[in-house]
Amino acid sequence: MELQPMDVDTTAASGPSERAKLLLASPNPSAPWQDLISSIRQTFLPRPKTKQPRPRHSVLFLQALFPILKWGRNYKATKFKNDLMAGLTLASLCIPQSIGYANLARLDPQYGLYTSVVPPLIYAVMGSSREIAIGPVAVVSLLLSAMISKIIDPSVDPAAYRRIVFTVTFFAGTFQALFGLFRLGFLIDFLSHAAIVGFMGGAAIVIGLQQLKGLLGINHFTSKTDVVSVLEAVVKALQDQWYPLNFVLGCSFLIFILMTRFIGRRNKKFFWLPAMAPLFSVILSTLIVYLTKADKHGVKIVKHFKGGLNPISVHQLNFGGPYVGEAAKIGLICALIALTEAIAVGRSFASIKGYHLDGNKEMVAMGFMNVIGSLTSCYTATGSFSRTAVNFSAGCETVVSNIVMSITVLISLLLFTRLLYYTPLAILASIILSALPGLIDVNEAYKIWKVDKLDFLICLGAFFGVLFGSVEIGLLVAVAISFAKIVVNSIKPSTEVLGKLPGTDHIFCNVVQYPMALQISGILIVRINSGTLCFANANFIRQRILKWVEDEINDDMEESTKTGSGLHVLVLDMTNVTNIDTSGIHALEELHKQLITQGIQLAVANPRWQVINKMKASKLIEKIGAALIFLSVADAVNASLLLKMDNLNSC
Amino acid sequence: MELQPMDVDTTAASGPSERAKLLLASPNPSAPWQDLISSIRQTFLPRPKTKQPRPRHSVLFLQALFPILKWGRNYKATKFKNDLMAGLTLASLCIPQSIGYANLARLDPQYGLYTSVVPPLIYAVMGSSREIAIGPVAVVSLLLSAMISKIIDPSVDPAAYRRIVFTVTFFAGTFQALFGLFRLGFLIDFLSHAAIVGFMGGAAIVIGLQQLKGLLGINHFTSKTDVVSVLEAVVKALQDQWYPLNFVLGCSFLIFILMTRFIGRRNKKFFWLPAMAPLFSVILSTLIVYLTKADKHGVKIVKHFKGGLNPISVHQLNFGGPYVGEAAKIGLICALIALTEAIAVGRSFASIKGYHLDGNKEMVAMGFMNVIGSLTSCYTATGSFSRTAVNFSAGCETVVSNIVMSITVLISLLLFTRLLYYTPLAILASIILSALPGLIDVNEAYKIWKVDKLDFLICLGAFFGVLFGSVEIGLLVAVAISFAKIVVNSIKPSTEVLGKLPGTDHIFCNVVQYPMALQISGILIVRINSGTLCFANANFIRQRILKWVEDEINDDMEESTKTGSGLHVLVLDMTNVTNIDTSGIHALEELHKQLITQGIQLAVANPRWQVINKMKASKLIEKIGAALIFLSVADAVNASLLLKMDNLNSC
Repeated sequence: MELQPMDVDTTAASGPSERAKLLLASPNPSAPWQDLISSIRQTFLPRPKTKQPRPRHSVLFLQALFPILKWGRNYKATKFKNDLMAGLTLASLCIPQSIGYANLARLDPQYGLYTSVVPPLIYAVMGSSREIAIGPVAVVSLLLSAMISKIIDPSVDPAAYRRIVFTVTFFAGTFQALFGLFRLGFLIDFLSHAAIVGFMGGAAIVIGLQQLKGLLGINHFTSKTDVVSVLEAVVKALQDQWYPLNFVLGCSFLIFILMTRFIGRRNKKFFWLPAMAPLFSVILSTLIVYLTKADKHGVKIVKHFKGGLNPISVHQLNFGGPYVGEAAKIGLICALIALTEAIAVGRSFASIKGYHLDGNKEMVAMGFMNVIGSLTSCYTATGSFSRTAVNFSAGCETVVSNIVMSITVLISLLLFTRLLYYTPLAILASIILSALPGLIDVNEAYKIWKVDKLDFLICLGAFFGVLFGSVEIGLLVAVAISFAKIVVNSIKPSTEVLGKLPGTDHIFCNVVQYPMALQISGILIVRINSGTLCFANANFIRQRILKWVEDEINDDMEESTKTGSGLHVLVLDMTNVTNIDTSGIHALEELHKQLITQGIQLAVANPRWQVINKMKASKLIEKIGAALIFLSVADAVNASLLLKMDNLNSC
Repeated sequence: MELQPMDVDTTAASGPSERAKLLLASPNPSAPWQDLISSIRQTFLPRPKTKQPRPRHSVLFLQALFPILKWGRNYKATKFKNDLMAGLTLASLCIPQSIGYANLARLDPQYGLYTSVVPPLIYAVMGSSREIAIGPVAVVSLLLSAMISKIIDPSVDPAAYRRIVFTVTFFAGTFQALFGLFRLGFLIDFLSHAAIVGFMGGAAIVIGLQQLKGLLGINHFTSKTDVVSVLEAVVKALQDQWYPLNFVLGCSFLIFILMTRFIGRRNKKFFWLPAMAPLFSVILSTLIVYLTKADKHGVKIVKHFKGGLNPISVHQLNFGGPYVGEAAKIGLICALIALTEAIAVGRSFASIKGYHLDGNKEMVAMGFMNVIGSLTSCYTATGSFSRTAVNFSAGCETVVSNIVMSITVLISLLLFTRLLYYTPLAILASIILSALPGLIDVNEAYKIWKVDKLDFLICLGAFFGVLFGSVEIGLLVAVAISFAKIVVNSIKPSTEVLGKLPGTDHIFCNVVQYPMALQISGILIVRINSGTLCFANANFIRQRILKWVEDEINDDMEESTKTGSGLHVLVLDMTNVTNIDTSGIHALEELHKQLITQGIQLAVANPRWQVINKMKASKLIEKIGAALIFLSVADAVNASLLLKMDNLNSC
C-alpha cells in the first residue's frame, strides 16, 4: 500500500520541476554565529517548559538545584524502612572498601572513611539518582596515587602528598561543577564506550597487581603502575623478603568473599551475604591477629587509624605552590573519569527503573560534593558501581540510603576506629581484589569486537596503554584513536553507484548492497557517503566520481558497440552531504567542467539546505544550470531520460 | 511525469515489507581491514586500464614516468616555433625574478639563476603539465629564508646557510617524490583553499615588507618576518641611515613595470610588454648606475655575481649535523607549500585547456626535479603563478618552452653575469613587488566570505598568523582551525523534523526549509544530519531527539485535547548516517527504551549498509523489532499509519 494523499493542496509540488523550484527557493539557513548565539542562549536561559507565574519560577529553580525539596515532601515511613535496611547493608560494605581504597590512594585509612561521610550527604540533597552509592572508588584512587606520587612521594612526605590530594579534589569538583553549569556534559562522551571498557579492564588489572604488595606483605614496592615495573618489584621482593602468613590470610578470606558472592548470585534471598562478607572478614581477621599476635610474625597491620569527625582541611588547600598547574591537570583527568563512572552507573540504574537522569545536573551535584569534600578532608568521591548494585539489590527507594550509610560510617569513625588497629593489610587487599572482576567486562569487549572492529582497536589501545604505559597514556591513546577515526572517516569517504530497486519508482539503492537494483543505461547515479564535502575530501571525492565515470564508459564500450548511446548524464546524489565548504564548491565546479569536456551532463539530486544555499552564493547553480538541480534522485533520473530521448530524436 | 516501470521483474520489492526484507538481508559490507588492503593494492598494483600484452606494459610504465616519450613523438616544427617564442619571453621575465627571489631567500644571485636551469629541464622530461613555468618562487624563497635564518644567520656564515638550504631542498624533493609514489596526494588537500588564499595574501604582504630593505637601501635589517618587527626595523633605519636614491630608482621602475602591465592587460597584443619590462628595467638601471657611478652615492648594487655552469653541490648536503632534524621539518613544510602552489597552478591551466593532471605523477616529477636540483646548487623550485600565466599568454604548446627558457638562462649565466655587477638592489625589490599583487586575491576572499563564514575564519587565521606570527604559525593556525571544524561538525550535528511535501507520496522534507511540508498527526519524523553516529555525538543526538519528542507532545497537548490521539510513532530517518559505532548502537538502544516507557514506537527508516550490519551484529534489530525497520521514510510512515489505525480500532 502507498500513502494516501491528504486533504491539502496537492498541486503545489506535483512535478519534478515545481519541486526543484521549491528547492531553489529555500530560505537562507541560519548562519554559524546565529547557531552559536542560540546555543548559548539555550544554555543560560533555558525556556521554561510550562508557563509559570514569577514566584513559582524561583521555587522551580531551587527544586532543580536541590531535588530533595521535591521528593522529600512525599517521603513516607515505609520508604524509610527500605532505605534504612539498604543504607546499613551499604555501610557494612562501604567501611572495609573505603579503608582499602584509601590504602590504594596511599592515604591513611581514615581518609577513606571521611570520603564516605561528607560527599554522600551533599549528593543526597543535590543529586537526582535514587540508587547511586557515593564514596571512594578503586579507579579514581588509583589515578590519584599514580599521578600524584610522581610529584611527591607519600612515603617521604605524607602531609605534602595529602595537601596535593585535597587540592586535586578541589579542582576536580570545580571542573565538574563548571562542566555542569556550562552544559559541557558532552565532554565526557569523548571517552567512548569502547575506550571506557578497555580502560576499566586495564585499570582493574593494574589495581589487582598493586594489591600484591599487601597480599605478600612486601615492604618496598614500586610507585609505578605498569605491569612490567610491578612484576619486577614483586619478583625482587619474592627473592628478597616477604611474609607468607599475609598471603595465607589474604587468600583464605578472598576465597571466603568470593564464595559468599557465588551463593548470593545463586540465591537472590542471600543478597546481603556478599555485602556483609567484607565487614565480617575484617572483624574476624582483626580478632585473629589480635589474639594470635600474628603482627609479630610478619603480618602487616593498619596501625595508624585516627578516629573522630572529618577535620576541616581548608588551610591544606594549596593554590600557590609549584605544583598547582600539575594539580589542576590531574584534577581535570580525575573529574572526567569520576564523572564518566558516576554517570554510567547512574544512567544504567535509572534506565532499569525507567526514569531519566540529567547529566548536567548530576555534574553540578558531583562538583559541589567534591568541592565541599576537599574542604573536609575527603578525597575525590564518585558513584561506585559495586556498591550501587548492592544498594539496588538491598531495595533502596531514595538517596536516603546514602544518608543512612554516611551516618553509620560517621558513628564507626567516632566509636570503633581504635578496634581496627590490628586489621591486617592483606584483608584490605583481598577486599579490593574481590571487587575487581566487576570492572573487567569481557562480554562487552567481545560484543564490541563483533559490532565494530575499530572500536575494538580503541578498547585494546586503552587496555594496553593502561597496562604497559600508565593511566594517562591509556586514556590518551583511546582519545587519540577515537578522534583519528572521526578525521579519517571524513578524509576518505566512500561513494557508491545507485540503481533503481525493481518494483518501486523512487527508491534508488547501492548496486553492490542490493544486487537486484538496476542501473539505467546512459545514466550513472553516484551517491557521496559523507556528511560534509570539505577541503579534506573534496578532491578525493571528485577523483573517485571521475573514476566511476571512466569505468562506466569502459564497461559501455566493451559491452555494446551496437548502440552508440554511452553515458549521457551523471546524477550526483547529494542527500548525505549536509554541509559543504569553498573547497567542496570548487570540486563540484571542476567536476562539472571535466564532465562537460567528456560530453556528460551533471545533474545534482537533493542538495541539502546548507549546500543549496552555498551553491547559490557561489553562483555554482548558474554554471550547472538550475534546470539540472532536482529534489530527488527519481526526479533527476526522469528528467535525464527525457533529455536523452530529446538527444536521440535530434540525432 | 514519473518513471516508467522498466521491462524487469517488478514483483521483487513492490511492498514495504518486501523491501524491508531486502534491507535486512543485505550481505556483510567489507570490513575495515579489507578496505585497507584493497586501498594498498590499488596504490601499488594499479589495475591496467586496458588489457595489454606484457612487453607493452613496460613501455607504458616508462611513458607514464617520462611523458615526453609520448608527446615527443608527435612534436612538430610549428609547435616548436610557438614554444621558442614563449620560452624566450619566459626567460626575459625569469632572469630578473630569479635574481630577486635569490635575494629574498638570502642567497647570492647566481643561485636563483641556477634554480632556473636544472629543475625546468628535469620537469620537462617527467612532468605532464604543458603550461607550468618551473623555477624559484616568492613564497618558497620567503619560507626558506624565514625558517633557516633562525638556525644559522646567512650574514654570519653564508656557506653553512647554503649547505642547509641544499639539504632542505633535498628533503623537500624526497618528501614530494615519496608523497607521489605512495599516492599521498590528498595530503596537500589539508591546506584548504581558504587557508591558501589567506596564507598567500599574508605571505605577499610579508614579502613586500621585506623589499623595503632593498628599496630604502637599509644596511641592518631584521631577520624576523612579522609585520611588527619589520616595521620597527624600518622605522629605526629611517631614523638612523637610509639612501633616498635607492627609493627614487626603485619606485620609478616599479611604476614603469606596473604601467606596462596595465597596457598589456588593456591590449592583449602587447602581452610581451609586461613580460619584458623587468629585464629591460634591469638592463637600463644597471646602465644608469654604471654610467652615473650612483653606487658611490649610496645606491646598493648586486656586486657578487659568479657566472658559469651550475656547480655540483653533492658534497654540501649535510645529513649528520645537529640541524638535520630541523632541516627535514623545514623540507616537509616547503615540500607541501611548493606542491600546493605548483598543483594549483598546473590544474587551473590544465582545466582551461581541458586536460587532466594526475596530482601523484606531478608530485613525483617535482620531487625528482628538486632532489637533482639540490645536487646541482639549486634551491627549492616549483611552478610559478606569474610566469606560468606569461608562458600561457605567449602561446606555449608544450613543456619545451621550459627547455628553451632553461637554455637561455644557462647562456646568460655563461656570458652575461659580469654585466650584472652594477644592477641596483632596489630594482630587484621593485620586480618582486610588482609580482606580489597576483598573490593577494581579495576577490576570492570576498567570495569565501559570501559562501562560507567558517572558511573565511580559516582564511583570516592564516592571513593574520603569517602577518603577525610567522609563516609556520599561519599554516598551523589554518590547519588547526580546519581540523577543528571537522571535529566540531561531528560533535554537534543537527537533527530536523520532516514533513511530507504536498503533491508527492514519497518525498519528506525539513519542515523549516519547506514550510509547506506537512507533518502527519501522531507520527514524528526526525532525520539525523550526521555522517556518523559515534561516541562524540551519540548522546547529543539521543537527547536532541527526545527533546523533539517532548516538544511534539507538548504541542499536541496545547493544540488538541479533543482527540486524545497524541504521538504514537517516532520515525528515525537514518539516511545520512553512513556509519555507526558501539556508542551509537547504545544510544539507539537507550532511545528505544526511553520511547517505549512513553508509549511511543521507534521505527527506523533507511539504515545504511554499515549501520544495518552493526544493528544485526549487536542484536539491536531484535530489540526494536525487524517489523519496524524500513527501507524508506515513506514505507515507515505508511506502516505507522496502519499501526495507528489498528490501535484506534482496538480502543
